[in-house]
Amino acid sequence: MTTQEQHPVIPEGYTDLLGTTALIHVATLGPNGEPQSTPVWFDWDGEHVKFSQTKTRQKYRNVQRDPRIALSLVDPEDPYRYLEIRGEVTKIEDDPDLDFINAMAKKYLGMDEYPYHQPGDERVVVYVEPHHTTQMGA
Amino acid sequence: MTTQEQHPVIPEGYTDLLGTTALIHVATLGPNGEPQSTPVWFDWDGEHVKFSQTKTRQKYRNVQRDPRIALSLVDPEDPYRYLEIRGEVTKIEDDPDLDFINAMAKKYLGMDEYPYHQPGDERVVVYVEPHHTTQMGA
Repeated sequence: MTTQEQHPVIPEGYTDLLGTTALIHVATLGPNGEPQSTPVWFDWDGEHVKFSQTKTRQKYRNVQRDPRIALSLVDPEDPYRYLEIRGEVTKIEDDPDLDFINAMAKKYLGMDEYPYHQPGDERVVVYVEPHHTTQMGA
Repeated sequence: MTTQEQHPVIPEGYTDLLGTTALIHVATLGPNGEPQSTPVWFDWDGEHVKFSQTKTRQKYRNVQRDPRIALSLVDPEDPYRYLEIRGEVTKIEDDPDLDFINAMAKKYLGMDEYPYHQPGDERVVVYVEPHHTTQMGA
């Protein structure tokens, strides 16, 4: 499936949001089941929302403990249009050569390499499978 | 406490974010403890983040069932600066005369009255007490 094709869960008319440079706010569950929320850069491959994470971050530990996740993003051109995606983390992939985080730096910063990489940071790619959405706007 | 004073939980240098017209992404827990996330208009009174809700919305039922909540917002002027507030819903107040939602319409739309009110909508004001924050940026 390419990014252009309609995904069965994403409502028609909202797929374009997944091609924007909006930040996506990621809600995960902390160690006591409490909600946590952080904005991140994201990519959409037509089947999964993907985002980068270092192994030391709490979000990484959260989704390993409980893969349930919610993502919300707002149209950068229209603050009254948003999409929420609820789903599950189905895969976490190592990013040893920083291919994914560098692609995100390209998308969001126009740079070939992610400029904030720290020696020792172990990066992964988190894959989210959409199960359900809510939305507002036309 | 006024909105200008420093709050013990909000880090110095981030209070200004609470005066912006950013949307705040609200993470709550659904009926099975799963995360849900939605962007909303918000107000900061110096002690609580407040947002409007109708009684029929799932977020309203969520915070009555489990008051734990997380909020994240990004500086509209600087996408690399954000604040996450974790806390608890400590009060839900009726808004029978729509004073609060109208004040939000003033803040976000520059209008005296909220233009999307539907007859029968029962509005409440949700109060969030901050317990802990995470942040990025300077």
